[in-house]
Amino acid sequence: MEKQLRELAEYVQGEVVGDGQVVISSVAGIEEAMAGAITFLSNPKYRDKLPLTRASAVIVAQDVDAPGLNLLKVANPYFAFARIMKLFEQKFHPPIGIHPTAVIGDGAAIGEGCRIGAHVTIGHHVNIGARTIIHPGVVLGDYVTVGADTLIYPNVSVLQEAQIGDRVILHSGTVIGSDGFGFAPMNGEYAKIPQIGTVVIEDDVEIGANVTIDRAALGQTHIKKGVKIDNLVQIGHNVVIGEHSIIVAQVGISGSTKLGRHVTLAGQVGVVGHIEIGDDVTVAAQSGIPKSVPEKSVVAGSPAVDQTLWKKSQIALHKLPDALKTIRALERRIRALEEQLSALPADESAS
Amino acid sequence: MEKQLRELAEYVQGEVVGDGQVVISSVAGIEEAMAGAITFLSNPKYRDKLPLTRASAVIVAQDVDAPGLNLLKVANPYFAFARIMKLFEQKFHPPIGIHPTAVIGDGAAIGEGCRIGAHVTIGHHVNIGARTIIHPGVVLGDYVTVGADTLIYPNVSVLQEAQIGDRVILHSGTVIGSDGFGFAPMNGEYAKIPQIGTVVIEDDVEIGANVTIDRAALGQTHIKKGVKIDNLVQIGHNVVIGEHSIIVAQVGISGSTKLGRHVTLAGQVGVVGHIEIGDDVTVAAQSGIPKSVPEKSVVAGSPAVDQTLWKKSQIALHKLPDALKTIRALERRIRALEEQLSALPADESAS
Amino acid sequence: MEKQLRELAEYVQGEVVGDGQVVISSVAGIEEAMAGAITFLSNPKYRDKLPLTRASAVIVAQDVDAPGLNLLKVANPYFAFARIMKLFEQKFHPPIGIHPTAVIGDGAAIGEGCRIGAHVTIGHHVNIGARTIIHPGVVLGDYVTVGADTLIYPNVSVLQEAQIGDRVILHSGTVIGSDGFGFAPMNGEYAKIPQIGTVVIEDDVEIGANVTIDRAALGQTHIKKGVKIDNLVQIGHNVVIGEHSIIVAQVGISGSTKLGRHVTLAGQVGVVGHIEIGDDVTVAAQSGIPKSVPEKSVVAGSPAVDQTLWKKSQIALHKLPDALKTIRALERRIRALEEQLSALPADESAS
Repeated sequence: MEKQLRELAEYVQGEVVGDGQVVISSVAGIEEAMAGAITFLSNPKYRDKLPLTRASAVIVAQDVDAPGLNLLKVANPYFAFARIMKLFEQKFHPPIGIHPTAVIGDGAAIGEGCRIGAHVTIGHHVNIGARTIIHPGVVLGDYVTVGADTLIYPNVSVLQEAQIGDRVILHSGTVIGSDGFGFAPMNGEYAKIPQIGTVVIEDDVEIGANVTIDRAALGQTHIKKGVKIDNLVQIGHNVVIGEHSIIVAQVGISGSTKLGRHVTLAGQVGVVGHIEIGDDVTVAAQSGIPKSVPEKSVVAGSPAVDQTLWKKSQIALHKLPDALKTIRALERRIRALEEQLSALPADESAS
Repeated sequence: MEKQLRELAEYVQGEVVGDGQVVISSVAGIEEAMAGAITFLSNPKYRDKLPLTRASAVIVAQDVDAPGLNLLKVANPYFAFARIMKLFEQKFHPPIGIHPTAVIGDGAAIGEGCRIGAHVTIGHHVNIGARTIIHPGVVLGDYVTVGADTLIYPNVSVLQEAQIGDRVILHSGTVIGSDGFGFAPMNGEYAKIPQIGTVVIEDDVEIGANVTIDRAALGQTHIKKGVKIDNLVQIGHNVVIGEHSIIVAQVGISGSTKLGRHVTLAGQVGVVGHIEIGDDVTVAAQSGIPKSVPEKSVVAGSPAVDQTLWKKSQIALHKLPDALKTIRALERRIRALEEQLSALPADESAS
Repeated sequence: MEKQLRELAEYVQGEVVGDGQVVISSVAGIEEAMAGAITFLSNPKYRDKLPLTRASAVIVAQDVDAPGLNLLKVANPYFAFARIMKLFEQKFHPPIGIHPTAVIGDGAAIGEGCRIGAHVTIGHHVNIGARTIIHPGVVLGDYVTVGADTLIYPNVSVLQEAQIGDRVILHSGTVIGSDGFGFAPMNGEYAKIPQIGTVVIEDDVEIGANVTIDRAALGQTHIKKGVKIDNLVQIGHNVVIGEHSIIVAQVGISGSTKLGRHVTLAGQVGVVGHIEIGDDVTVAAQSGIPKSVPEKSVVAGSPAVDQTLWKKSQIALHKLPDALKTIRALERRIRALEEQLSALPADESAS
C-alpha cells in the first residue's frame, strides 16, 4: 500500500511540516526506517536519534522541530503511529470459506464471512458468529460458542461448552476449558472431582499463546470484557477476572479467586485460591499473593506487602550481614560498660 | 438425565429428610442452583446461604437441619456430591471408531472400543489399549504405547517410544517426550547430547494442559502411579516422581531429581537437578529447592528452609528497616555511656 | 546396529583395554546397562559403581583401571559417550516426501529431501530448505522461511513471515511469532498496538517444548546463532538474545530487552523490559532482573544483586528473628546502664 504523507495526516488529524506529497509505503522504528517508511518519536530521550533517521517522514509531538525532515505533528505520536501501523498491516488469514480438510460437526452453525483453515475440527452444535477467523489445527469441542469478528490462531484447543465472545483473540497453542485441578484425598490416593462447569470469555478479550484456562468445577470460570492476558498464563477453575484487567506472562491464578476491574498482575505473579483482589490493584512482578488485597493497593514481594515497605525491606536486607556484626560489637561494648560500672566502689554505685 | 432424590440417596448411601420423590436433573453450586438442581453444603461457614438456595435438594452433613428444604444427609457431603456430579456429567468424546481423517501408521494396534478423533496422527507400531479416547489433533509418535481407558485431549503430542498407562488423562497441548535439555560446552558453543531415553507414565496419572515432560537422556523419565500434575508444569529429563504426588501449576523440576511418594509441590515451585525429595514432603508455593529435602519436611522460601523459620524470617524482614535505625540509636547511646564513664575520675574507674 | 568395541574406539579415538571384539548393540547408564551395552564413567564419585556394572564395555578416563572389565579409555568420557549415543540413536521421523494429508500453500518451495508429516499446514509462499523435517500437526504461516536440516516437532505453530535458520530444532507445541503484548490505555480500556514485525531465529538454535516467542511490534525479535532455550520459556516482542546463550525452563524475558553472548539465565528467572544484560552474565534460578546487568556479572535474588552478597543476606535473614530479640535485650541493658550512671553523685559524673 502507498499513501501520501498528507493523506496520513488527514487520517490521524495531524499537521504536515515539510513535503506532504512524499509517498509512504511502510512503517518502521526510527533506527531501522529506510526511504519510503514513516516512523515516530514519542519518548523525548530518543530525540537525538531524530537527525539520523533515514525515514521519509516522522510522527512527532507539537513541540518538536527538525529542519530538513518531513514531520507529521500530532497530540499523541505513539497512538497516531499505532493507527497508521494498522493501515499498513498485512493480513495473513485463511480465505473466506471452509477449507475442504476442515471437519465440521452435526448441527454446527457457521456465520457469514467466516474463514475456517485447514485441518480444523469443529464439534457438534458449535455456533460461530460472522466474520470469525479460525486458523489451521484449531479444535473446538461440542457445544462451543464463538462470537463475531473473533480470531483464533493455529493449534488452539477450546473444549466443550466454552463460550467465547465477539472480537476475542486467542493466540496459538492456548487451551480453553481443560479440567480444573480438583481431587479429593481418599485412602492415600486422590479421587478426581468431575469438572462439569464451563469457561466464559467476554467480548474484546485477548489471550496470549500457550495459556491455560480451566473450566469450572461447577458454574463458570469467567474472563470479563476487555481483559488482556499474556503468554503462558495459568487460570484455575472458577476464577473470575474483572473488566479491563491486565495479566502479564507466566502469572498463575489458583482456583476460585476473584479479581476486580483494572487489576494489573505483572509477570510471574502467583495468586492463591479463594481470595479477592480489589479493583485497581497493581501487583509487582514475581510477587506471591497469599490473601485478599483491598482495592487500589500496590503490593510486591512473596508474600506480598505494600510496595513501599517491600522496597525498604529489600534495601535493608542487604545491610543485614553488616548489622549483625554491629550487634555483636555493641554487645561486647555493653558488657565492657557493665563490667566497668560494677567495678565502681559499692557505696557510690548504690547511692 | 433425571433421578428422584431417593434414588440418589440410595446411590450415595445417605438419608433423605423431606421429599424423596422430588426430581433432580442437574447439579450446581449453592448460590447458582435453580429448581431441579441438587447442591451441597460442606464448609460450615457457608451455612447461612442454606435458607436462600433455590435448589430442589441439598446434600448436607448429619448434623445440619433446614426446615422446608429437601436434605440428603451423608457422612461426607463433598464426596457424595462429587459422585453425583459424575452421574450427571455429560460426555463429549469422539464416537467409537476411527475418524476417516485420522492417519494410522503401519503395525499400529488399536484396542476394542477406542475413539480416535479427526486429524489424529498415530505413528508406526503404536499400541493402544481398549476403550481409550483420543481427541482431534493428537500426535502419537512411533512405538508409543497407551494403556486402556486412557483419555487424551486435543493437540497433545506424545513423542516416540513413550509409554502411557491405563486410566491416564492427558490434557490439551501437553507434550510427552520432548528432548531433555542436555548440551556439552565445546569451544564456546554447545554440542547437543542425544536424548535417547524415554518417558514412562504409570496408571491413574492425570497431567494438565500445556505441560512438558522431557524424555531421558538415557533410561527413563518416570511418573509413577496416581501422580496428579497441574497445567504448565515442566519436568526435566530423568526425573522420577513417586506414587500419588501432587505437582501444582507452573512448577519446574530440573533433570535427574527424584521425588518420593505423596510429595506436594505447590504452584510455581522450582527444584534444582540431581537431588532427592523424600516421601510426604510439602513445599510452599514459589519456593526454590536447592538441595535434597528429608522426608516429611514442610519447607518454604527461595532458597527453601523449614516453613516455621521462613514465616518468622518474613515477619522479621519487614521490621528490619526500623531495627537498623534502632541499632544506630543504640550505638550513639553506648558511645555516650562510654564517654561518660571514661570521664569519671581515673582512680575510681580503675579500682 | 552392532559395532565391535574396537570400531567404537577408532570412532572416538580412544584405546581399548580388554576385549576389543566384544559386540556392542546399545548404550545405557552404568546401573541400567545389560550385556551388549556400552556405558561410561565420568564423575569420579560414581567410581564404586564400576565393579557392579553388567555393561559389556565402559568408557573411562585415562587414569581409571578396572580389571576384568572391557574399558575404552578416552580424554573426555562423557563427550565420547555422547558421540557413541548418536551412533546408536534411532530416527523416528516422517519418510522423505510430503504426506498426502499435508496442505501446501500457493508458491511454497520445499527443498530436496524434506519430510513433511501428516496434517501439516504450510502457508502461501513458504520457503523450506533441503532435508528439513516437519512432524505432524505443524502449522507454518504465510511467507515463513525455514532453513536446511531443520527439525520441527509435532503441533508447532510458526506464524506469518517468521524466519527460521539452518539446523534449528523446534520442540512440540512451541509458538513462534504470536503477537507481542502491546496495548495503549485509552479511556479506561486498552487499544491493541498492531504487532507487524517478525521473528528471526538464526542457525543452530534449539527451542524446547511449549515455548512462546512473540513477533516484534516493529522490526524483529531476534534469537542469534547457537542459542539454546528450554521448555515453557516466554520471550517478549523485540527481545534480542546474543549468540550461544542458555535460557533454562520457565524463564520470562519482557519486551525490548537485549541479552549479550554466552548469557545463562537459570530456571524461572524473570527479566523486565527495555534493559541490557551484558556478555557472559549468569543469573541464578528464580531471580528477578529489574535493571541492566554489566557483562560477566553473577547475580541472584529478586531483585537480583551480586550473588555473594545475596548468599550472605539469605543466611543473615534467618538469623534476623533472634537478632531482633538481641536488639531489644541490648536496649534494656543500655537503659539500665544509663540509669545507673545518672544515679552517680552529680559532682563526679560532671567532672
